[in-house]
Amino acid sequence: MKILVLNCGSSSIKYKLFDMTTKAILAQGGLEKINLPGSFLKITLPNGEKKIIERDIEEHTAGVQFIFETLTHPEYGAVKSLDEIGAVGHRVLHGGTKFSGSVLITDAVIAAVEECCDLGPLHNPANLKGIYAVQKLLPNVPQIAVFDTAFHQTMPEKAYLYAIPYEYYEKYGIRRYGFHGTSHRYVSKRVCEFLNIPAEGSRIITCHIGNGGSIAAIKDGKCVDTTMGLTPLEGLMMGTRSGDIDGGAILYLMKKEGLTPDEMSNILNKKSGVLGIFHRSSDMRELEAAAAKGEAEAKRAEAMYFYRITKYIGAYAAAMGGVDVILFTGGVGENQATARWAACEPLEFLGVKIDPERNKVRGEEAIISTDDSKVKVVVIPTDEELMIATDTMEILKNQK
Amino acid sequence: MKILVLNCGSSSIKYKLFDMTTKAILAQGGLEKINLPGSFLKITLPNGEKKIIERDIEEHTAGVQFIFETLTHPEYGAVKSLDEIGAVGHRVLHGGTKFSGSVLITDAVIAAVEECCDLGPLHNPANLKGIYAVQKLLPNVPQIAVFDTAFHQTMPEKAYLYAIPYEYYEKYGIRRYGFHGTSHRYVSKRVCEFLNIPAEGSRIITCHIGNGGSIAAIKDGKCVDTTMGLTPLEGLMMGTRSGDIDGGAILYLMKKEGLTPDEMSNILNKKSGVLGIFHRSSDMRELEAAAAKGEAEAKRAEAMYFYRITKYIGAYAAAMGGVDVILFTGGVGENQATARWAACEPLEFLGVKIDPERNKVRGEEAIISTDDSKVKVVVIPTDEELMIATDTMEILKNQK
Repeated sequence: MKILVLNCGSSSIKYKLFDMTTKAILAQGGLEKINLPGSFLKITLPNGEKKIIERDIEEHTAGVQFIFETLTHPEYGAVKSLDEIGAVGHRVLHGGTKFSGSVLITDAVIAAVEECCDLGPLHNPANLKGIYAVQKLLPNVPQIAVFDTAFHQTMPEKAYLYAIPYEYYEKYGIRRYGFHGTSHRYVSKRVCEFLNIPAEGSRIITCHIGNGGSIAAIKDGKCVDTTMGLTPLEGLMMGTRSGDIDGGAILYLMKKEGLTPDEMSNILNKKSGVLGIFHRSSDMRELEAAAAKGEAEAKRAEAMYFYRITKYIGAYAAAMGGVDVILFTGGVGENQATARWAACEPLEFLGVKIDPERNKVRGEEAIISTDDSKVKVVVIPTDEELMIATDTMEILKNQK
Repeated sequence: MKILVLNCGSSSIKYKLFDMTTKAILAQGGLEKINLPGSFLKITLPNGEKKIIERDIEEHTAGVQFIFETLTHPEYGAVKSLDEIGAVGHRVLHGGTKFSGSVLITDAVIAAVEECCDLGPLHNPANLKGIYAVQKLLPNVPQIAVFDTAFHQTMPEKAYLYAIPYEYYEKYGIRRYGFHGTSHRYVSKRVCEFLNIPAEGSRIITCHIGNGGSIAAIKDGKCVDTTMGLTPLEGLMMGTRSGDIDGGAILYLMKKEGLTPDEMSNILNKKSGVLGIFHRSSDMRELEAAAAKGEAEAKRAEAMYFYRITKYIGAYAAAMGGVDVILFTGGVGENQATARWAACEPLEFLGVKIDPERNKVRGEEAIISTDDSKVKVVVIPTDEELMIATDTMEILKNQK
């Protein structure tokens, strides 16, 4: 069966078409700048070549229609007819406490996702637009929702509650939800296969380090804590996000600069993190290059960035009473040896020893710790789209 | 020599008079509700008896004058004449980056403390009122300032910077300062004497757990990280303070409830923490009793409270590349065996083993780990006033 995976943002739609018999990617691409000047579709052809097709796209249904045309295009299409698409899997950001797993999309599910719009105001409405578009264009094709928050729903109360008046949790659902759940779930399952260890009894710390970044503590295959919170702002220092910061500092700055909550949010989410300290870029490759040249601002940003990863690994080892596996994934986690080294180097007291040669790996599954390292340190490239496609298959099977 | 230690709040003044030859406390007490209805002085007589004297006190100079009268009172006074007081040591909350140690108070010091009022708006102005009062009443007696932030000034940049635009650090001094520094300094020095170990080469985690609470990571006798930040809000869950919380959650709640920064600050500082979850009280003794009876809200608050201590111990062990000593102090840390047990029990993987019998200790210096525990776990009652008096003596000596 062929399954289409859609990741709809407010002005973009990314897609991947999988053949689930072979897990092969039949087609992939992304639509950018929906309802903005210069909207275009970028597709990756089977030979790896990229192709850009410009077209004015004013809203998501037209965007999905454009993707469908491309998928069935006589020259560079991947399927003869849309009838070949057995189901569509959607990435949905926020499932609140309503979803602890992936689900077949029904009217009730749509209503529940709508209720979570308040918690994911930038993403959930866009995710819904994609769902509505497919409903309109392929009304008979089943759709499945896969939530970024779902995997973290197993966290115990002591990890997900904030120490603010409990009424705000009851009234507004203010608590830790966590994000990147599909990635943390995929890599934490995959690493057990890769190392041939059971999930049960294993204490795994998954570091999803990319432009956004989060760490999860996974015990017996279940998430017990994660760094992102009600929003994806909390936790690690990221490309443009501050991560953890004293609430008192936020309020102090708001008063000093006369900022509204939205203005403050914009600073913390878009102008902070690596960008706020390094200034020139939020990109870790540029940062690494500048730090290697000895630039002071770059070295400062790197030191802060790595230090927070180290501290969270320590905190989560404590949360689980120890750690068996530390796993790196995401753009930085999969590719940047210096980041993995700097984050793990202080952890020898936990029985962590990185092998500098093995650590040179980029974008491949690999053990990067020494043979005598008590804790296995592993790189597992993430594959959220494959996980969404796999969930979609599973749910379809269970429907029949 | 006799040294008077003053801790001036906005509506209170606490004092202790030490004989520095014997380190004996000659007199102690506190003035409450300055400029409020029902102001009174509560003194502890040498026999331990408490005595309350009511008097309308409208401002700090009158308050200090009242304390002086009490110190020289024919019946319950401790000295014959104020001439016996060799110096006055003041607790000052915020020294910003200007003070990394205690100093003799001069006009330049006063100006610098005034500049830090912005960072400590509730405390620094009150601390200054006490200094002005003594200047007026005992113009020839040297005064010394001991800062809550000073001990933490050795933190490296990666620990004290927030990942927000660097300009805000330069313009407003927004960074981690840390508090309870006098306590962390006192207990971290004292524990080295107590265990007969050198500060150099030791990695000590000091947990000051009271109504307010903070943890510090101390390597080679120097603070390398601490949980409180720009303000005393960050870090652990406290009696009425939230501690760590997603910045996004703060901004979300402000928008939902239409709160100003001051209103939000009031919720996070005064209505959160144990009080926000347990509701009935912010007092850990009441919480412990209610949790022991199995009350659900109390158990929830306790689990959250203990969990955060555990996580920070793990994080700071990682920050220092290991830990040799974990130390508990403060009202809860010195007295509550259940808190120490719950915080340390998950840490066996670090080589931490608590001895349940030894852990019964209350308010005394004691090792509470087993003999075969790799990490020594210790209770050291804090004594900030003695530390202030000791600093005061040291500075006077160096003046001569």
